[in-house]
Amino acid sequence: MSYTVQVKVMPLKDLLDPQGKAVKGGLTNLGLKGVEDIRIGKNITLQIDAASEDAAKAIADEAAKKLLANPVMEYYEIEVQ
Amino acid sequence: MSYTVQVKVMPLKDLLDPQGKAVKGGLTNLGLKGVEDIRIGKNITLQIDAASEDAAKAIADEAAKKLLANPVMEYYEIEVQ
Repeated sequence: MSYTVQVKVMPLKDLLDPQGKAVKGGLTNLGLKGVEDIRIGKNITLQIDAASEDAAKAIADEAAKKLLANPVMEYYEIEVQ
Repeated sequence: MSYTVQVKVMPLKDLLDPQGKAVKGGLTNLGLKGVEDIRIGKNITLQIDAASEDAAKAIADEAAKKLLANPVMEYYEIEVQ
């Protein structure tokens, strides 16, 4: 069966996120109020062919570990849909 | 009150996603099987100070329209947590 798996890769909470800071400055310049903080990461949608939901999640986890996320700077969350 | 809002920005389904295609090739080279398709977008976490959940969502929507997403190539989804 084919599963849709979302992998969310975000910068670690303890690290600065210069891209988010730049976007926050951009929003302030556009006059948008209320935004206190922005962090920007990746959202990766995988279409995985696997025998079960758990197998699909395991494949996504391996993909995240090997290629999608850099554990030194990022953490990831996996969600099977 | 402060709300955490997730904005997911993904390439439109009808468009090619060269970044996703490259990552798919990378996973194949690493010997990972079962991945049929990959699409890569952004995940933006906003911390928004607003009077209500709807107000926070409205601010995130304006931010997405004005700066975060390019409607010619991307669509976005907003989720208040």
